[in-house]
Amino acid sequence: MRITVHRKAHFNAAHRLFRKDWDDERNLEVFGKCSNPNYHGHNYELIVSVTGEPNPETGFVMDLKILKELIYHEVEESFDHKNLNIEVAEFQDLNPTAENIAVVIWKKLRPEILEDHDLEVTLYETPRNFVSYKGE
Amino acid sequence: MRITVHRKAHFNAAHRLFRKDWDDERNLEVFGKCSNPNYHGHNYELIVSVTGEPNPETGFVMDLKILKELIYHEVEESFDHKNLNIEVAEFQDLNPTAENIAVVIWKKLRPEILEDHDLEVTLYETPRNFVSYKGE
Amino acid sequence: MRITVHRKAHFNAAHRLFRKDWDDERNLEVFGKCSNPNYHGHNYELIVSVTGEPNPETGFVMDLKILKELIYHEVEESFDHKNLNIEVAEFQDLNPTAENIAVVIWKKLRPEILEDHDLEVTLYETPRNFVSYKGE
Amino acid sequence: MRITVHRKAHFNAAHRLFRKDWDDERNLEVFGKCSNPNYHGHNYELIVSVTGEPNPETGFVMDLKILKELIYHEVEESFDHKNLNIEVAEFQDLNPTAENIAVVIWKKLRPEILEDHDLEVTLYETPRNFVSYKGE
Amino acid sequence: MRITVHRKAHFNAAHRLFRKDWDDERNLEVFGKCSNPNYHGHNYELIVSVTGEPNPETGFVMDLKILKELIYHEVEESFDHKNLNIEVAEFQDLNPTAENIAVVIWKKLRPEILEDHDLEVTLYETPRNFVSYKGE
Amino acid sequence: MRITVHRKAHFNAAHRLFRKDWDDERNLEVFGKCSNPNYHGHNYELIVSVTGEPNPETGFVMDLKILKELIYHEVEESFDHKNLNIEVAEFQDLNPTAENIAVVIWKKLRPEILEDHDLEVTLYETPRNFVSYKGE
Repeated sequence: MRITVHRKAHFNAAHRLFRKDWDDERNLEVFGKCSNPNYHGHNYELIVSVTGEPNPETGFVMDLKILKELIYHEVEESFDHKNLNIEVAEFQDLNPTAENIAVVIWKKLRPEILEDHDLEVTLYETPRNFVSYKGE
Repeated sequence: MRITVHRKAHFNAAHRLFRKDWDDERNLEVFGKCSNPNYHGHNYELIVSVTGEPNPETGFVMDLKILKELIYHEVEESFDHKNLNIEVAEFQDLNPTAENIAVVIWKKLRPEILEDHDLEVTLYETPRNFVSYKGE
Repeated sequence: MRITVHRKAHFNAAHRLFRKDWDDERNLEVFGKCSNPNYHGHNYELIVSVTGEPNPETGFVMDLKILKELIYHEVEESFDHKNLNIEVAEFQDLNPTAENIAVVIWKKLRPEILEDHDLEVTLYETPRNFVSYKGE
Repeated sequence: MRITVHRKAHFNAAHRLFRKDWDDERNLEVFGKCSNPNYHGHNYELIVSVTGEPNPETGFVMDLKILKELIYHEVEESFDHKNLNIEVAEFQDLNPTAENIAVVIWKKLRPEILEDHDLEVTLYETPRNFVSYKGE
Repeated sequence: MRITVHRKAHFNAAHRLFRKDWDDERNLEVFGKCSNPNYHGHNYELIVSVTGEPNPETGFVMDLKILKELIYHEVEESFDHKNLNIEVAEFQDLNPTAENIAVVIWKKLRPEILEDHDLEVTLYETPRNFVSYKGE
Repeated sequence: MRITVHRKAHFNAAHRLFRKDWDDERNLEVFGKCSNPNYHGHNYELIVSVTGEPNPETGFVMDLKILKELIYHEVEESFDHKNLNIEVAEFQDLNPTAENIAVVIWKKLRPEILEDHDLEVTLYETPRNFVSYKGE
């Protein structure tokens, strides 16, 4: 019996979409106003989903208090109120698209989740644009 | 051709997380403030999802009026404005975690859904904590 | 120049609607399934709104970090994961209707807000039922 | 590595559920008030989900600006502020149930999406009734 | 002491914006695609707000079960799954703009609310367009 | 007869809270992580509310298509995907708190609204923090 538990979290951050190895003109052409060199930002809404067998003793797949703290330490402490391009190591040479942010979050959380459990990350960049990644 | 139809419903209820065979200290240690012996409660939001081939005559996988009534009779009548631990038979010896509530709802609905149809239940305990179960 | 700042918070709790001086029959007649002696519960969503002149130095009517902490200490610590009828002093002899809960919260917060500032409390008992009180 | 990007859109339209080859009585019996010959309507919320490998250069599975425009040209221009039964060619002989609308949208978008990419369409007819279709 | 209680409800309906005494060209010029002669439609979300002194016995400004039923009988029964222009008497000669629908609802509810109580109606035509009216 | 029409809009932007005439230490002390010199950002949700007498010919207080375009030209074009501190003239010497952003938006819109009409601006900085200003 496999059940999925989901926990929602929030962080807000500045970013810009661009590649260091492209000039401004090409960045603007590909990424449009998202490549503004002065940055823009978002309220990112994050859903972390863990699938596994519930512990027969507790009835929990995973204690959501622990998942909440894990998200806090692995994601919010590093990303919240930050400039993703400048202050988050993973985006020094990686374009912080919603896709790439979701993969980075997945990779940070994966080692902290039981091996038998599956992990999916859903990230809302705006209420109308969002991505999901499950490590496949 | 398989399509999923989803119906949202709502009930509110009191509960506490605990095991009768553990003492108060251990219940508190494992379940924290959720084990408050005086109970706390939630507005549970429920999404029931049925997947199958649409009926070529009606264009319905399942008439959502019928699904609405089914949820009303199988879930809302038993759970709404109730104390899950005291008044709902299924939780006499089962800890009413969101995971277990979702499984109980799935088991109550499964026999009422066509055999060819798949069933998934998603249950929001709070806007930030939710679970899903599809009988696997 | 008067501006209103709003802060949203959340607590969940068990309660029942009833008057000690009425018998069960009358409580049931007036309060229906909300008078269930075994309690039911809600995810209460709270909006606290403070109106005043922004501080010309900071541009803040009130620092929302301070308002967040005030709500935490005055409301969430006393109400969250509690049985309102049994564990919250203010409801020992007061029926915990949404109206009365909103007034109690308003009275707890009012002395902590600057005298020049106006205070309004909005409380969602469910996504469809809510109340607001501004001390008039 | 496969990631899903989602884009939300909106259109509102009138429709009625009925089959031309059934008489009014049978239509009413099967489709209830949804078969009102004078029509009723909805704010349809649409989520289009595209799954594929992110482009290593851009970090995009699909540029959401392009997906937004595609949804605009293929769906909103034809459906928004329209009577689905009268004005949308696909529903001349097809009952505009949420299921059928989702399939029609999927078929309109599928040829415009890269062959390697998977496509799913989720359509909310009301906040409580919605369907999803992924071409299986 | 005056408190406001709010109740949310829902109906969906078809309508078109137009004046019988204007020709099609002028209707199109003023009302744009909203004047489509074949109609379009919306999921209307309605909030009815009643302000008054809480009854000292019950702690209720107004029993929300009664307000729910009142909205059902006065609004939903007449408007839900209807064509507002054709089937609702009040719009025979009145353009069903959100403003006018809100005023009609207010006038239908006002006689049913205690004279000492204030009444406000908020009507969402779409998640981005809404109106409110309090009888002033 | 006075009715309020509301229109929701969206922009996202980077900002930091700080005063040029304070040193970094004092900015950090007062504004905390919101004073990050590398900026952070938000999805701002904006509600513009206009109150007035409906035009008896059209039934509109104000055509919401016109209000939508006005918000686009006065607010979104200047603020969306921008760094408020660097790129928006009004914040060259004004701390971009939610309060100040709301007042700036109100002042930009006020001259474009009929003199007889009242104007209110509500600005969500996050789903939990928001402000409103009506020019009083």
